[in-house]
Amino acid sequence: MARPTPLSGFPEFSPAERIVEQRVLDILRSTFESWGFASLQTRAVEPMAHLLRKGEIDKEVYVLRRLHADPDQEQDPGRTLGLHFDLTVPFARYVLEHSGTLQFPLKRYQIQPVWRGERPQEGRYREFTQADVDIVGDGALPFHADVEVAQVMAQAMSRLPLPALRLQVNNRKLIEGFYRGVGAPDPAAVMRAIDKLDKLAPAAVRDLLTADAGLDGDQADRCLRLAAISGPDPSFADAVSALGVEHPLLDEGLEELVRVVEAVAPLRTDRFEAVADLRIARGLDYYTGTVFETRMAGFESLGSICSGGRYDSLASDGDRSYPGVGISLGVTRALAPLLARGLVTASRSVPTAVVVALADEQARPACQLIAAGLRARGVNVEVSPTAAKFGKQIRYADRRGIPFVWFPQPDGSHQVKDIRSGEQVAADPAGWMPPDEDRSPLVVAALG
Amino acid sequence: MARPTPLSGFPEFSPAERIVEQRVLDILRSTFESWGFASLQTRAVEPMAHLLRKGEIDKEVYVLRRLHADPDQEQDPGRTLGLHFDLTVPFARYVLEHSGTLQFPLKRYQIQPVWRGERPQEGRYREFTQADVDIVGDGALPFHADVEVAQVMAQAMSRLPLPALRLQVNNRKLIEGFYRGVGAPDPAAVMRAIDKLDKLAPAAVRDLLTADAGLDGDQADRCLRLAAISGPDPSFADAVSALGVEHPLLDEGLEELVRVVEAVAPLRTDRFEAVADLRIARGLDYYTGTVFETRMAGFESLGSICSGGRYDSLASDGDRSYPGVGISLGVTRALAPLLARGLVTASRSVPTAVVVALADEQARPACQLIAAGLRARGVNVEVSPTAAKFGKQIRYADRRGIPFVWFPQPDGSHQVKDIRSGEQVAADPAGWMPPDEDRSPLVVAALG
Repeated sequence: MARPTPLSGFPEFSPAERIVEQRVLDILRSTFESWGFASLQTRAVEPMAHLLRKGEIDKEVYVLRRLHADPDQEQDPGRTLGLHFDLTVPFARYVLEHSGTLQFPLKRYQIQPVWRGERPQEGRYREFTQADVDIVGDGALPFHADVEVAQVMAQAMSRLPLPALRLQVNNRKLIEGFYRGVGAPDPAAVMRAIDKLDKLAPAAVRDLLTADAGLDGDQADRCLRLAAISGPDPSFADAVSALGVEHPLLDEGLEELVRVVEAVAPLRTDRFEAVADLRIARGLDYYTGTVFETRMAGFESLGSICSGGRYDSLASDGDRSYPGVGISLGVTRALAPLLARGLVTASRSVPTAVVVALADEQARPACQLIAAGLRARGVNVEVSPTAAKFGKQIRYADRRGIPFVWFPQPDGSHQVKDIRSGEQVAADPAGWMPPDEDRSPLVVAALG
Repeated sequence: MARPTPLSGFPEFSPAERIVEQRVLDILRSTFESWGFASLQTRAVEPMAHLLRKGEIDKEVYVLRRLHADPDQEQDPGRTLGLHFDLTVPFARYVLEHSGTLQFPLKRYQIQPVWRGERPQEGRYREFTQADVDIVGDGALPFHADVEVAQVMAQAMSRLPLPALRLQVNNRKLIEGFYRGVGAPDPAAVMRAIDKLDKLAPAAVRDLLTADAGLDGDQADRCLRLAAISGPDPSFADAVSALGVEHPLLDEGLEELVRVVEAVAPLRTDRFEAVADLRIARGLDYYTGTVFETRMAGFESLGSICSGGRYDSLASDGDRSYPGVGISLGVTRALAPLLARGLVTASRSVPTAVVVALADEQARPACQLIAAGLRARGVNVEVSPTAAKFGKQIRYADRRGIPFVWFPQPDGSHQVKDIRSGEQVAADPAGWMPPDEDRSPLVVAALG
């Protein structure tokens, strides 16, 4: 066949890039599990009726058809399947389907690909991996769950080899209460306008507020002043109070936002900070309290790479309602642009730490025994694929970034060469270990 | 919405079952990496033209369509996408697409879901996870690659919490050479008939051999006697020689099969053995040398759960050919029936090893500090979701199988209770660790 070409919107990684992705996924998993979140995976497909039930027809869903399907059956929309476009909709379905056997509050994480038939561009893919954490209650869910999902995702993000991340937290009750307090006739319209501050100048948003959201100039200015408030500690609350607006919902939201910001502030690092940012509204989603977005320094054009919030009802089966709070990291969205620019790399393209060199093909079984011994002690090791000249065997390792080559000696002793330094020393196959930092590929972020 | 019901053929696991699956995947990954195999993942979709290019129209491929697609564009078969039905076809495409930058021989593993629109039944799913290892060469690939994929998958399987597994190895050259040696006019037809020994009695297969494959009675009997040979060590070769058939291809295949069996024999355990089994033909696949199948004790009706072999050409772009050898484990296929019967279970449904109990809600920040300290030392820990009576907090842990509950004492000291034994002892939050076996959920196989 002719050499295939990539499919736009379906990123695939090289072996070294995949090592970076795996490291990111390992960090996410171990952090989520250290907080007691259990892994779940759902099937890739849902009935189309479920995927579209919230009127999500703006989503470019991929619809499935079996190649040899009976055409009549396929017409039945109740039986038509589509690929999930996020992990929240399938999780909500899973919770309802298994509500009788699940233990609530349920803390789960879910790392899987999702599919959207969107026009591909950087940061917008047709297949991409998301990592979600959610806490779901049966009937009720205390507010400290909001704090917990913020903390666990903040800790996970602070450990990732990414450019500086800024978790922006807001609270829908706070802004809705404020908008009501200033006398807005349609707080949702205000929210939708404020949401456009990412793309429009404040003056243009002010026009929207007065033209579409029914505010007068003074009301619009106060809403814009609220949206301009942000800060890494609870002192932002003083700036809100200074605007002189009063509403019980505002007070409730303000107290919640202070609690999240206080809890996440200690996780600040060189590369991660959390802030209250009163501009964040997530106007198109169904959040009812805490909302999250995340910007990556130097990649602001990607938009938010980690978003979420509190739902009063993640799922409901009529009798019962399941409130939830969650946050979703766009793994591919954050990582693919960095990998494409070489800003995050792996020190090698294979897990191998050491290659056992072959003096000749007859030595293979003996070399495999050496390899098996090293492997039993946790070293990733290969036997050279050929008994070529040692220079060529060293190049085999060098091309893959493998740091060590092992040389069995004619007298039965052993030597190991660090091919980076060229240093070759005697080694005991029953005891030698590579330095800790060489056991697995290093993931290096050149992020300035 | 009404409570959703499962979709036949799309298995989903409970949190505890998912822990078992994750353990299986972790064992596979760490074993594959210890042999130097690099992880790769390919996109879920391929152009239909590529999926069907080997005439695989018997495969029930899922075809994709964007919900809002331009109908004209969708008619273009060159642009139509389908979900991959295995991991070999996408890997072959990946190798061709990236042959200029990949390092050969390429050792990769790939663990991903695949989709087939087959009629669902136990062991046959519409979405299921496979774990493949392959070695691919550029132009040539030495035979020791066959030995290596057998060894790495044998070692991985010997570590899995599954019923006893029997890896059956054969060699296409051996059987083809034998069939030629007895004078078979159409060795492929003999192979297809022998392949039916799984489902038909030998007498029925003998009828096929004489009716369809053009053998006389004596030739058919010798082919059946060959197929009856199996054994865990190289002595099987004597039984082959005793049949008195000679052909150069037979000799070549016999020598190869002996080498695989010798190399894998040392990996034998209570739960795993490898045998030469001269009945294995994999008649419908494109193998040219070594072939593998695997049976799981008590679940023979599933057929082979781990299969593969040597391809002379995994992929080819006209100029170059990429020979390969690989083996693919049906993770869902093996695991789902065991999970459904409760034969393999996890000791808990969450990663959590210890719950920090709350005397009252005001104690939450202090308890979170205790949790953070334990977490920093690698303990998976949660703070109780409520400050309910301690009995109820202990039940929270008990229902999830969490072994320990931590009790901060009014005097500032700490105690930890093993809720299985009821034993409660003083503990230092800066030093306490759960016993090693309690740090992660235990996966228990009740396999008799």
